[in-house]
Amino acid sequence: MTANRVLAAGLSEHVGERVALAGWLHRRRQLKSITFFIVRDRTGLAQVVLTAEQAASAGIAELPEETVIQVTGLVKASAQAPGGAEITDPALTLLSEPAEPPPFDLYRPALTAALPTVLDHAPAALRHPVLRAGLEISAASVAGFRAALDAHDFTEIHTPKIVQSATESGANVFAIDYFGREAYLAQSPQFYKQVMVGVFERVYETGPVFRAEPHDTARHLAQYTSLDAEFGFIADHRDVMAMLREVIAGMAAAVRARAGDAVDRAGAKLPDVPGQIPELHFADAQQLIAAQAGWDPRGEPDLSPADERWLGEWAVREHGSDLLFVTGFPMVKRPFYTHPDPDRPVYSRSFDLLFRGMELVTGGQRLHRYGDYLAALAARGEYPAPYAGYLQVFRHGMPPHGGFAIGLERWTARLTGATNIREVTPFPRDLHRLAP
Amino acid sequence: MTANRVLAAGLSEHVGERVALAGWLHRRRQLKSITFFIVRDRTGLAQVVLTAEQAASAGIAELPEETVIQVTGLVKASAQAPGGAEITDPALTLLSEPAEPPPFDLYRPALTAALPTVLDHAPAALRHPVLRAGLEISAASVAGFRAALDAHDFTEIHTPKIVQSATESGANVFAIDYFGREAYLAQSPQFYKQVMVGVFERVYETGPVFRAEPHDTARHLAQYTSLDAEFGFIADHRDVMAMLREVIAGMAAAVRARAGDAVDRAGAKLPDVPGQIPELHFADAQQLIAAQAGWDPRGEPDLSPADERWLGEWAVREHGSDLLFVTGFPMVKRPFYTHPDPDRPVYSRSFDLLFRGMELVTGGQRLHRYGDYLAALAARGEYPAPYAGYLQVFRHGMPPHGGFAIGLERWTARLTGATNIREVTPFPRDLHRLAP
Repeated sequence: MTANRVLAAGLSEHVGERVALAGWLHRRRQLKSITFFIVRDRTGLAQVVLTAEQAASAGIAELPEETVIQVTGLVKASAQAPGGAEITDPALTLLSEPAEPPPFDLYRPALTAALPTVLDHAPAALRHPVLRAGLEISAASVAGFRAALDAHDFTEIHTPKIVQSATESGANVFAIDYFGREAYLAQSPQFYKQVMVGVFERVYETGPVFRAEPHDTARHLAQYTSLDAEFGFIADHRDVMAMLREVIAGMAAAVRARAGDAVDRAGAKLPDVPGQIPELHFADAQQLIAAQAGWDPRGEPDLSPADERWLGEWAVREHGSDLLFVTGFPMVKRPFYTHPDPDRPVYSRSFDLLFRGMELVTGGQRLHRYGDYLAALAARGEYPAPYAGYLQVFRHGMPPHGGFAIGLERWTARLTGATNIREVTPFPRDLHRLAP
Repeated sequence: MTANRVLAAGLSEHVGERVALAGWLHRRRQLKSITFFIVRDRTGLAQVVLTAEQAASAGIAELPEETVIQVTGLVKASAQAPGGAEITDPALTLLSEPAEPPPFDLYRPALTAALPTVLDHAPAALRHPVLRAGLEISAASVAGFRAALDAHDFTEIHTPKIVQSATESGANVFAIDYFGREAYLAQSPQFYKQVMVGVFERVYETGPVFRAEPHDTARHLAQYTSLDAEFGFIADHRDVMAMLREVIAGMAAAVRARAGDAVDRAGAKLPDVPGQIPELHFADAQQLIAAQAGWDPRGEPDLSPADERWLGEWAVREHGSDLLFVTGFPMVKRPFYTHPDPDRPVYSRSFDLLFRGMELVTGGQRLHRYGDYLAALAARGEYPAPYAGYLQVFRHGMPPHGGFAIGLERWTARLTGATNIREVTPFPRDLHRLAP
């Protein structure tokens, strides 16, 4: 590395020194007697001032944007320059060939290309300061997730993504040729994180999950990053909700602390996480919608997107909260490992956390007795054989436990206001897209 | 959660109080007039003392090991008990059904079952304090990896695991049915982490990679956890080696700080990471072996396992170091994106880091010019078309860059002295094993 390289964000600390700046030629502005180079590095933008002679020498004035350069020069204070300092009297070195400019201008305030063009050219498009900001927010969020759970004595795990049988349901799995046998890509680490509660009591995993989603929607992907947690010795799903509240607050705090600049660049809005997130039972939520919203969802076994949106607005109106727990979803729409509500067994001890009117997290208490699993599968007309490897642990002593899974890209999209989840996913995978 | 639950490790802080302890019945010891229950929770073991009457009531004395219980009682100081305190006058609640004991005794100092039995019953076997220790060391290592790179301004990324074309070579990829098209599981995040250097300069990813290894060896898996880093604006591979040294030191420090107890339990040995890790050029390494080891590897394009072992012993003997860099591997055995040594182009600017005589990390400088990629592929008789999505970014300005990948399971196996990598992998995947 160049010994005296300084970063754009720290340039003003070196006024009066000769330093080296390295990065991408973000923008060129040629005036009559002077040329400005705006150089972009990982910390931001910095201005370099060239005289007409300097710009004319060796074709420098014609260097395309995105060319990687190193500039050595004298730092001067300048009120007009980004960060309050600029480099003058520069000597310029190319660190690569002159670049071919991408099919959009990265220096404009927003990328004006259509989403498919942006995604086709993601390697270059993600360099745009606003697109990049979404990924910075994602990275900070994951760090916050882990820190919040580390503080509660959770252990990180890494579990198999190639599995013998589907987990969440028979549909929507990708089949894989596993040494001549059929196997599947894991739709979630659900079974493994439960198993690992038997080892560590409290575990989390941050990793890819795979869904062969046959529908093209703005909120589904074939691969996404799932932030999973599971823990034991709970009384019921309320302990899981309390832990989730801590985690969401920790994620928001980490975004603020680690990616504050990206929040500004993306125009992202962080939620205030109330000490107690408001909540509604599923039956009460439907009742409320029927009474006030203008349609009657009662009898439906799940919330529709319209229901979720209405409840999101209700939570803001009534509680000033971007977040709302809906509890007690009907058992019929929940996976077989869901723990029923003992008092009203048609309902479950599960919940969704809605964030600005969209499901962000699903969680709840799980069954923990072997006999209950056999009964639950039998009630659904399923044989236990495909689940044998998973079920064995419930014969060897499992505590009452539960957990949740947060969809990282959905979280980030809600923060930045992206209408399509692909805008905050570096290289999305869907029905039509397998590259880049 | 039980409001007054205390954890085993903190029991001695509650002498004189009535508390609740919850966990697994790790061991039962019946003496003539007294019965000891050893209860295991996430922090360790605690002793509960039952009188003959208490043990006789309601079949408590016959409770199988691994049953999940809660014990409420009075904490008394006891020099003989683990942690110096025990629970007396207990009232006992079952938190699940009586367990079926696993096919091995988890309370013995070591699991005596053969490895296939252990792996078949991994959900229970991993509860053994020594097996569990390996996973605690892994978790701490990953935290150390991230912390070391966070401190150097790296950004975490999450990249696609379903890809259009093989990355590392044509062989050893798993094929997947992707909505009727053929796709592959990513063998590494290599291309994506390079692309993201164009966005963030410095990136890392900790995630699963997939190799369809057709061989059954003690050090290969079909899925493992790869700790990947990549960064730009380097002078050459020496900058990468310097960063890797920081990361290895950070991982060792994190294991010491976060998993010290697990280190003791597993009998793991942490390396002292020298300020400067000793290094040998590939050609010099072969020369040395030829002169001193009793065999002559010169002319071979790679190191054999025997070469690595000998060099590992040499590093201890000559430098007192468990770690040794071997640099300058011949280009012919390195992937096409490897940067050649400009002075001796038959050699590369790549390296392996040997840890106790086994390759732990591979890394180096990569090509960064589009024209160099085309030339490298042509020289190997490969067409650029399958790499189009990857190569496009090199037309849009990429700085000199490089990186490395650490195999998490290999690292942990070296620390604990496990002879088979499967001993420190929670649910290994290989030619024969797809469950649990």
